[in-house]
Amino acid sequence: MRVEILAIGTELLLGQIVDTNSSWIGEQLAAAGIDSHFQTKVGDNPDRIRQALAVALERSDAVICCGGLGPTQDDVTREVIAEFMGVGLVQNDEITLRIRSMFENRGRVMPENNLKQALIPVGAEPIPQQPGTAPGLICPIPPVDRPEGSVIYAVPGVPYEMKEMVNGTVIPDLRRRGGELSVISSRVLRTWGISESALAELLSERISRLDEAGNPTLAFLASGVEGLKVRITAKAANEAEAEVMLDSEQAALWPTIGHLVFGFDDDNMETIVIRELVNRELTLAVAESVTGGYVAGRLCAVPGASQAFLGGVVAYQAEVKQRLLGVRDGPIVTEEAAVAMAEGVREVMGADIGLATTGVAGPAEAEGKPVGTVCLAVASADGAIATTIRLPGDRERIRQFSTISLLDVLRRVLVGQDD
Amino acid sequence: MRVEILAIGTELLLGQIVDTNSSWIGEQLAAAGIDSHFQTKVGDNPDRIRQALAVALERSDAVICCGGLGPTQDDVTREVIAEFMGVGLVQNDEITLRIRSMFENRGRVMPENNLKQALIPVGAEPIPQQPGTAPGLICPIPPVDRPEGSVIYAVPGVPYEMKEMVNGTVIPDLRRRGGELSVISSRVLRTWGISESALAELLSERISRLDEAGNPTLAFLASGVEGLKVRITAKAANEAEAEVMLDSEQAALWPTIGHLVFGFDDDNMETIVIRELVNRELTLAVAESVTGGYVAGRLCAVPGASQAFLGGVVAYQAEVKQRLLGVRDGPIVTEEAAVAMAEGVREVMGADIGLATTGVAGPAEAEGKPVGTVCLAVASADGAIATTIRLPGDRERIRQFSTISLLDVLRRVLVGQDD
Repeated sequence: MRVEILAIGTELLLGQIVDTNSSWIGEQLAAAGIDSHFQTKVGDNPDRIRQALAVALERSDAVICCGGLGPTQDDVTREVIAEFMGVGLVQNDEITLRIRSMFENRGRVMPENNLKQALIPVGAEPIPQQPGTAPGLICPIPPVDRPEGSVIYAVPGVPYEMKEMVNGTVIPDLRRRGGELSVISSRVLRTWGISESALAELLSERISRLDEAGNPTLAFLASGVEGLKVRITAKAANEAEAEVMLDSEQAALWPTIGHLVFGFDDDNMETIVIRELVNRELTLAVAESVTGGYVAGRLCAVPGASQAFLGGVVAYQAEVKQRLLGVRDGPIVTEEAAVAMAEGVREVMGADIGLATTGVAGPAEAEGKPVGTVCLAVASADGAIATTIRLPGDRERIRQFSTISLLDVLRRVLVGQDD
Repeated sequence: MRVEILAIGTELLLGQIVDTNSSWIGEQLAAAGIDSHFQTKVGDNPDRIRQALAVALERSDAVICCGGLGPTQDDVTREVIAEFMGVGLVQNDEITLRIRSMFENRGRVMPENNLKQALIPVGAEPIPQQPGTAPGLICPIPPVDRPEGSVIYAVPGVPYEMKEMVNGTVIPDLRRRGGELSVISSRVLRTWGISESALAELLSERISRLDEAGNPTLAFLASGVEGLKVRITAKAANEAEAEVMLDSEQAALWPTIGHLVFGFDDDNMETIVIRELVNRELTLAVAESVTGGYVAGRLCAVPGASQAFLGGVVAYQAEVKQRLLGVRDGPIVTEEAAVAMAEGVREVMGADIGLATTGVAGPAEAEGKPVGTVCLAVASADGAIATTIRLPGDRERIRQFSTISLLDVLRRVLVGQDD
């Protein structure tokens, strides 16, 4: 199966919205082992959608059309697909009902133009997942160039609606059409604390060996401030067998990278940290200099963070460090200052644990320390630990990477207590 | 002139990198009044780049190829373009020199494979801007389908390199080829404090009237937490005339939207706020509840912020508000509480001005106030002001929009002092 993606929407061409949908779908197709060689963006113009679809159907077996399924005049994806199917549009009762009840549940009257969304090409099959008013469609295209015909999937441009349909129906349907009776399953190991090239080196031998054998496979993905993701993908006769393979590959990787893994799949560092704190009934406070609010900002992004996170002090100027946190006069980009800040904020907030960052985000060096020097500290009733790291990149990157690095230091302290 | 964009790189198809380059180029083309109807992504595969280029050259007069100009085996853009030109590659002395001196200036020895980057198709013209080792190219394609021939621009995938070449050469060259002897110039008015639909309504009549006349034109662009951008674009015989047109259109818009404008072009809210504070030699401290560090985080992103920003208190739990900021026991999502927080942080940090946010980011309502209710306050020696806003969207959006809203309240206070 060769699949390509056609993103539809004039706002994409004008740069008003960045097309993250195609990237996301591309990642899912790669994970499912489905070849995808082209992605195209086109505006809300029937002629040009027609042109782009013709090109796509000629070189690929399936096309995923993303966008243009709304209720307005501009939304013409359904009409153009119907032309390629050689059919007209028909009102679908099931979808009509879904849309009506969606509005009723929200206590709103359905505008009549929303019924346009229930008009689908004759012979098209609605995708069962439908989180919004736009239905997704599976549209078989009659055999012309290729004896077995081809298929167009139409999904909405709203990311969460699109994702549910692609994962729930499009990928499994593509795999079935490609003659795959197996299931494919993957697990992401989330890591932090090593550079991309160092992780690549750690894993290179294993990746080559698995690539030769073909199943399971291993891939890794740099995800900026979210860390480095290592994805294991396994193909098996059923979910249970795939799980066994994932477990076994994870176990094989553990001696090499287990110490770097902070979570799995959709975990992120702040969720993990809040969870570990809540499990231990510990409270947290943060003193930030170089990160200037980013640590607090990231922790507060977790719903329910207030169960563990009390608050923080952003001590951007030296005087504030002394005034509010009781840090002594002297150099501030030192582990001693970081510890004093962590202890100070712990005390002033009445928290079980205090964290602190101090460092040089640039543009210029400070106290003779080069840009990228960052000291991190964790203080608790048992004492304090501190560490100094050197980060590459610009001001923003240094502040972001300091943030996740500090949270990882805390996570290691918390988890280490169990050992 | 019809132009399309071809982004080259397997990592784009696999979703490892989101293609922001094409969006950015699309925005520049639109601003320059150049039609662009398709954007395609393709991997580092000569056959498929060839296929995609053939399709693009058939339906457009010019193609901007972005990426694949590096020194590795994977970088094949130059070779494929040479095929379309019907020529071979030749070592370009000027580019060789540029690359060599680039390495020498950094005190490094040039790896021999970097010389591959100086191999260009015979007849291709190097783009004068070259901030990195990859040269950009203007490649004329001999007339086949169209009598006047067509043109391929090759630019690197590194965003800052690409941007310099597109703005410096590609857009002016496209306009010249399109027979445009005029210059085009634009100015962005950065606004905050009104919804997208309300701004659209305020401007709709003016936009239609200008659209009919054709020059200057007006467009607006929702940019999330960066506010709404209103762009005036003017076409004139020279820069000076274009500036006059921009000034005059800005003056015409001012009675309608002048009160919403916080800056111009690349200004952002935090830069403006820090600048206004520094100009007045005022210091600032922030007390954050609902925004949980985002206000401090955004202010600290401005290089030199420490000239005005002292620091902040993230008072996430009610007790912290009382303990550190002297807020009295009682409801905390109120303007009174916001004022008490702003006054408290001003005092505790010894700042001229104190800011505060308190509100309900969700997922659940609090104190009987619905999700999205946010109270903002500014306190100074002259007293305090507070306001309550209702924001739509999810937790993250509420926190982000509260942040820029608070900074805008402060900006208005500061600027208002001059009136």
